[in-house]
Amino acid sequence: MSEQRFIYDLSDGDATMRNLLGGKGAGVAEMARVGVPVPDAFTVTTTACVAAMENNGTWPDGLKEQIKEGLVRLEERTGKKLGASQNPLLVSVRSGAVHSMPGMMDTILNLGMSDDSARAMAEETGNARFAWDCYRRFIQMYGEVVEGVPGHAYEDALAQMKSDRGVEQDTDLDADDLKELVATFKEISSEHLGGDWTNDPREQLDRAIDAVFRSWGNPRAEVYRRANNISAKLGTAVNIMQMVFGNGGDTSGTGVCFTRNPSTGEKALYGEFLVNAQGEDVVAGIRTPRPLEEMEEILPEAYHQLVDTMHKMEDHYKDMQDMEFTIENGKLFLLQTRNGKRTAAAALKVASDLVDEGVLDKHQALLRVEPSQLDQLLHPAIDPKHGRRSIAKGLPASPGAAVGEVVFDADTAAERGAKGEPVVLVRFETTPDDIHGIIVAQGILTAHGGMTSHAAVVARGMGKPCVAGAQGIRIDPKGKTLTIGDHVFKEGDTITLDGTTGNVYGEALELVPPQINADFRRMVAWADEVRALGVRANADNFEDATKARELGAEGIGLCRTEHMFMAADRLPAVRKMILADSPEERAAALEEILPMQQSDFEGVFTAMKGLPVTVRLLDPPLHEFLPDLTEQSLKVQKLELEGGDAQELGAARATLAQVRRLHELNPMLGTRGCRLAMLYPEIPEMQTRAIVRAALAVLEREGETAEIEIMIPLVALTEELKVQRGIVEKTMADELKTSGKTLDVTIGTMIELPRAALLADQIAEYADFFSFGTNDLTQTTIGISRDDAENGFLTNYVVDHVLERNPFESIDVEGVGQLVRMGVERGRSRKPKLKTGVCGEHGGDPDSIEFFHSVGLNYVSCSPFRVPIARFAAARAVLNERRN
Amino acid sequence: MSEQRFIYDLSDGDATMRNLLGGKGAGVAEMARVGVPVPDAFTVTTTACVAAMENNGTWPDGLKEQIKEGLVRLEERTGKKLGASQNPLLVSVRSGAVHSMPGMMDTILNLGMSDDSARAMAEETGNARFAWDCYRRFIQMYGEVVEGVPGHAYEDALAQMKSDRGVEQDTDLDADDLKELVATFKEISSEHLGGDWTNDPREQLDRAIDAVFRSWGNPRAEVYRRANNISAKLGTAVNIMQMVFGNGGDTSGTGVCFTRNPSTGEKALYGEFLVNAQGEDVVAGIRTPRPLEEMEEILPEAYHQLVDTMHKMEDHYKDMQDMEFTIENGKLFLLQTRNGKRTAAAALKVASDLVDEGVLDKHQALLRVEPSQLDQLLHPAIDPKHGRRSIAKGLPASPGAAVGEVVFDADTAAERGAKGEPVVLVRFETTPDDIHGIIVAQGILTAHGGMTSHAAVVARGMGKPCVAGAQGIRIDPKGKTLTIGDHVFKEGDTITLDGTTGNVYGEALELVPPQINADFRRMVAWADEVRALGVRANADNFEDATKARELGAEGIGLCRTEHMFMAADRLPAVRKMILADSPEERAAALEEILPMQQSDFEGVFTAMKGLPVTVRLLDPPLHEFLPDLTEQSLKVQKLELEGGDAQELGAARATLAQVRRLHELNPMLGTRGCRLAMLYPEIPEMQTRAIVRAALAVLEREGETAEIEIMIPLVALTEELKVQRGIVEKTMADELKTSGKTLDVTIGTMIELPRAALLADQIAEYADFFSFGTNDLTQTTIGISRDDAENGFLTNYVVDHVLERNPFESIDVEGVGQLVRMGVERGRSRKPKLKTGVCGEHGGDPDSIEFFHSVGLNYVSCSPFRVPIARFAAARAVLNERRN
Repeated sequence: MSEQRFIYDLSDGDATMRNLLGGKGAGVAEMARVGVPVPDAFTVTTTACVAAMENNGTWPDGLKEQIKEGLVRLEERTGKKLGASQNPLLVSVRSGAVHSMPGMMDTILNLGMSDDSARAMAEETGNARFAWDCYRRFIQMYGEVVEGVPGHAYEDALAQMKSDRGVEQDTDLDADDLKELVATFKEISSEHLGGDWTNDPREQLDRAIDAVFRSWGNPRAEVYRRANNISAKLGTAVNIMQMVFGNGGDTSGTGVCFTRNPSTGEKALYGEFLVNAQGEDVVAGIRTPRPLEEMEEILPEAYHQLVDTMHKMEDHYKDMQDMEFTIENGKLFLLQTRNGKRTAAAALKVASDLVDEGVLDKHQALLRVEPSQLDQLLHPAIDPKHGRRSIAKGLPASPGAAVGEVVFDADTAAERGAKGEPVVLVRFETTPDDIHGIIVAQGILTAHGGMTSHAAVVARGMGKPCVAGAQGIRIDPKGKTLTIGDHVFKEGDTITLDGTTGNVYGEALELVPPQINADFRRMVAWADEVRALGVRANADNFEDATKARELGAEGIGLCRTEHMFMAADRLPAVRKMILADSPEERAAALEEILPMQQSDFEGVFTAMKGLPVTVRLLDPPLHEFLPDLTEQSLKVQKLELEGGDAQELGAARATLAQVRRLHELNPMLGTRGCRLAMLYPEIPEMQTRAIVRAALAVLEREGETAEIEIMIPLVALTEELKVQRGIVEKTMADELKTSGKTLDVTIGTMIELPRAALLADQIAEYADFFSFGTNDLTQTTIGISRDDAENGFLTNYVVDHVLERNPFESIDVEGVGQLVRMGVERGRSRKPKLKTGVCGEHGGDPDSIEFFHSVGLNYVSCSPFRVPIARFAAARAVLNERRN
Repeated sequence: MSEQRFIYDLSDGDATMRNLLGGKGAGVAEMARVGVPVPDAFTVTTTACVAAMENNGTWPDGLKEQIKEGLVRLEERTGKKLGASQNPLLVSVRSGAVHSMPGMMDTILNLGMSDDSARAMAEETGNARFAWDCYRRFIQMYGEVVEGVPGHAYEDALAQMKSDRGVEQDTDLDADDLKELVATFKEISSEHLGGDWTNDPREQLDRAIDAVFRSWGNPRAEVYRRANNISAKLGTAVNIMQMVFGNGGDTSGTGVCFTRNPSTGEKALYGEFLVNAQGEDVVAGIRTPRPLEEMEEILPEAYHQLVDTMHKMEDHYKDMQDMEFTIENGKLFLLQTRNGKRTAAAALKVASDLVDEGVLDKHQALLRVEPSQLDQLLHPAIDPKHGRRSIAKGLPASPGAAVGEVVFDADTAAERGAKGEPVVLVRFETTPDDIHGIIVAQGILTAHGGMTSHAAVVARGMGKPCVAGAQGIRIDPKGKTLTIGDHVFKEGDTITLDGTTGNVYGEALELVPPQINADFRRMVAWADEVRALGVRANADNFEDATKARELGAEGIGLCRTEHMFMAADRLPAVRKMILADSPEERAAALEEILPMQQSDFEGVFTAMKGLPVTVRLLDPPLHEFLPDLTEQSLKVQKLELEGGDAQELGAARATLAQVRRLHELNPMLGTRGCRLAMLYPEIPEMQTRAIVRAALAVLEREGETAEIEIMIPLVALTEELKVQRGIVEKTMADELKTSGKTLDVTIGTMIELPRAALLADQIAEYADFFSFGTNDLTQTTIGISRDDAENGFLTNYVVDHVLERNPFESIDVEGVGQLVRMGVERGRSRKPKLKTGVCGEHGGDPDSIEFFHSVGLNYVSCSPFRVPIARFAAARAVLNERRN
């Protein structure tokens, strides 16, 4: 068996080899292939990284030798030699995953620097300061990343040097100073390593590659992958590229550019650059860069070459590109190109424009928009009528509005965010170490950094509002204050951010629901032409149903009736019903609730007239309408011990007795759904009556009503559905007879227990439709209580990769999915035209929608604001199916 | 299409037609077929009853006409005519279900009586008193059963008549008195009906048949069916039989007899009779009957004919027979024969003896013993060393001992029994209306009635101790006292019954575990020759394991480890473990628990040396080892309000904080099983260490140890098992390395969640064996929390036939069973020789065992005392499979 190949030279790769070479490696190779100037390079494959991970970090056989050979070839091609005292080769060692994970893994620049190389470079470039600066940067970066030396040790030494010299800026240090600093840095490294610092660039290369491999598993990369649903099993490629220098003087520079505006999607070059700087300076947001347009004046030749290259690459990839470049003494090098990260609005505009430009057809355009990303468009904005003055303005780095309490560090943000408290993370600048705080924050405000700074890129990816580089704000993270003009905000004070405009407000402003723009409407219409799945919404009142219809819902897939019981003004009647001693008393209490239910139903049926509405009969256990057992026990004890009012005590004790009687150890598996209706048939009778009366009232008033589907929840046994169907049918017949009207109503059931899926053929006998309740089905199939698990072991499971995704967010296809498939197949084996849908929260998750399409459901139902996402995702499901 | 046939004449039936004609109808026809004297008759089929039930009581087409034709044929054969004024035909109308349900449904005797018939009968028999007595009995029975007239109305009139005449006994009333009573009874009926009492025997026959149909659904029949696992869908046949009279004088009589002793199984005629009485008098236990042997003197001819017939029928059916007979003026008629109900001890002895007699082979004999009935043999007896004197003695009507508090009515028994309180039901005599009290009582004591009285028959069927017809006890049900000699017992006082000897003790005596007798041992040995399934027991200490081995367990299928944590002296260490702040602290606390666990394991491994022991690692959630949330909250509040000791309050609050942290809304679906072990790998490490050390210690001490199987609970994800298996293997390797010994240990998992069954092929990759945890699998598949449901809706479901059986008692074959089958098949698709077993409580249920055999499990595991039952049931599974 021949040895596996782990090394690809620049000329061996192309864009199709992304899985093997990572996005960066494949992108650079493709650029070289089509004649774009890139530094020479070779790539260590992702398979090498995976092999090492699987073997506890031990490299696979042959890797070390192949790297050595790859280096020799690179040296031959460039005519330079790593660590040489003449014409030395310097390389960057960079991660490059299959899916872009900006800033999450490690990079080592200037590898190859040694005493000899530094001297040679000083001589060759005539710029000794530059050479020693590169060297000290290398020692610091290598020490931190590879050897784990604490960064502050180097920073302290640098600060000491500046203080000794009485200067303020790094740039005020001269070549000798930096040479001395190199010696100091070496000592720091040696001290930490407990041995001498020795320059062996060949050895350092291997160790740098290994460090990049290991950085795949660092905590911030894990957090990022989880937030972006990237598998932990992919591994990263490592790119070894000849260094080019943007920091060699005023004819050098570095920058980042997009072929279109990544925030709005507008067709205009968009980017930032810094003269006399290395690439990391732009990305890290330490110096605020200049707009790309200004480069035309400063470096006109490189600018025009860059513009040409940008157009060329966009045409080549038929998608907006995000590129990194360096200009070395006036010569342009492209370091990376990739499909640019963009806001959802930009994604829609770019895809839509590319259709108009004749570059893509409609179906290709649909595949360019990630449905899950559209969520960010569906976030609220600040009410335009607010009339307040902003107190600061920054860059509109990620659109949307956020209201929250100021916090100054990621740990506090994570802690408070986990409790559901709305926080805005305020940082001088963010780093990858802040990721856990960013994930839970409502929004991000930074004082430094541009549109491509860490905070901006990450926030856009998450659809989270971000205002970056806000001028004139002062942050004291230790003292925990944010000062804007004469306002001083302490931790816990509330502010509002507008990531769409860059405005910051010193108070909580009202937010309004998002509006769907023209690009969105246009592309969703294309999606509707393609998709097979129907899309409905979950709603239980007029307002939500109306909103759902506006957003394109083709019906209500789940109209819950429990909220109709929960309203404060209804609880007394509901409790009377629960405390009833006889069916008659219960029926009397239900009579009080009936008109309220009816009026709610009228609202929904009016909003949805002409479309189907699935009404689920009462589902939660009765004790949900009573006080908590512990609370009530404490109340009684308190009254007892304090000798409270006798009447109050009596009432409290009576309530406690009821709470105890109805208390269940595992309410999720208790007396709820149709089990309740079996015990108290008065409840489904009342509900059916309210539904029929509401439908007749709407029909009379509006001339049309909704297509009503009555749904029996939590059926495990065929007999339950048979009995409940009988109750609904009989009540309906009675009501219609009384009214003398007719009404078409279908009766179906939820499939939300494993047994129901297993016996779907029997159950279909009594069901006009099935609606899969995948939340409950997930709970019972995996044996996980959602409420408990998401605050407990489930989170650990996702962190530890016991599970790749939270099964309540995206359906567990291989487990729960089997039962859904079985339910559909068995149900249809009895009733070939059985209508099937899903009404769990998975109905709004794009990956789950793809699965539901594959098993042949008729529709999905989700929250109103996810309807457009579901329409998109349903179309993609069809297109992906065709591709496969 | 020709009309369905609903009527079979006596000569049309035989023993094979039991499903159609019911046990009684088929038995009588068979007797007629083989020449035994039976009264002429015809039978309305069970299918007629089922058709009527399914159509809300409306009779199927043709039934009415067919009954009319059947009656005409009966009249022709007997030469008598229903309702005629000369030579009138009288018939009984009796229920007759497929499975015997003694006394549970309705019967009408003497149908055909009318003014004309009474006069004719008086003339023909020369016994006017007898004729009018029959007539008044008929009016009363028909009124009560068919018309729903309250029985006391007739009883009151009879009492009034006796009082008017100044007599004590019914028999002291003469013909004229009875004639007058007939008139009074007619008035009572008319008054109740709001119309005139009219004699139309033809019409009355139809209505009587309908009443018997309806009695299939009466509450006591339902209760009986549930207790005996008889399907509600079978319906009853109705037998219309010419009346013969045992109450016509001293050459007449009636009785009940068994071919062998139904209590012990001894081969000796056994029965009771009454001279000059109707059959109901014997069964109802109102007059205490005479032993059958005495009949030889009184009615020698009939006696010898009866004895011959008994032998003949036993030979015919090859089983012990239970027969009813009537002697009319010296002539013997058999009214019914059926396989006799018997105690488990009798069942074993009869079957065993029949093999010795050459009537049955061993396999046939095994099929004569109902495994579920053997449970009664496994009940405790009174400690023989008790040394107390009995205060009363009755008939040993149903064996076994019972200790409980005296209650005087079935409602109180049912209410207190449902709370788990041990009660003894004390009644003058029991009736079918007492069935709900009998079911929950520890035992039954009656003052009246014999070995075939209602209490005796029902108690024997249930394996419940019963002392019947206890002489010298006085019961005052209103005043709620039981007086025996000068002891007066009030409700709630404790007594002890010995149903094996008939003794009653006025205090609580110690009970001892049952002993397995020779017949049992012999037949269980036959079962072992036949069965394919292995039988193991669930035990977690030396004593239980030793007992299990004695009872034939071939290993331990489930050794739970949680009890090892629960013992009071261990809880401090366990709580320290739970409250630990770091893995190190936790490991230290676990070190304290380790030696205790090890010593428990040593006990089990010693008892089971040479046999397999499956140890399940810790399963329950940690909060089970802490106080209850509500209790602890109350404790803290009380200390706060009362200003208690500060240190105590601090400790209580700290505990409360822990309880809150670990509190779960649905603990059944929470952090338990391997989820706990994933969070705290220190726990499985400690447990593995304890297991290995125990095994090595036993090996050293005894020269042999158990075959150890370590079982990981609650696996839902393949990754969980992979990780846990890794922990166990690594710990085991470490321990063995330290000790320098070797040990064969297998590692497997429970399949107790639907997802695990669905993905059993993947999971099998990391499992040496599967053990189906059907309790949990039932909970999640059906979505039922056992603790909540059995005290709630599940009980109603069984009462209302939404479910035929409680799925926690007998496995839900069509739902949960699918997943078990899938688990076995998919597991073996990956590992063909995968060992599979079951350790839920279903492992001791005969029907479930039959299912487990059919899916090819290797073994079942159950509580030690059910091991012999499981061995029997496993053999029957094989024999039944061969028959089918």
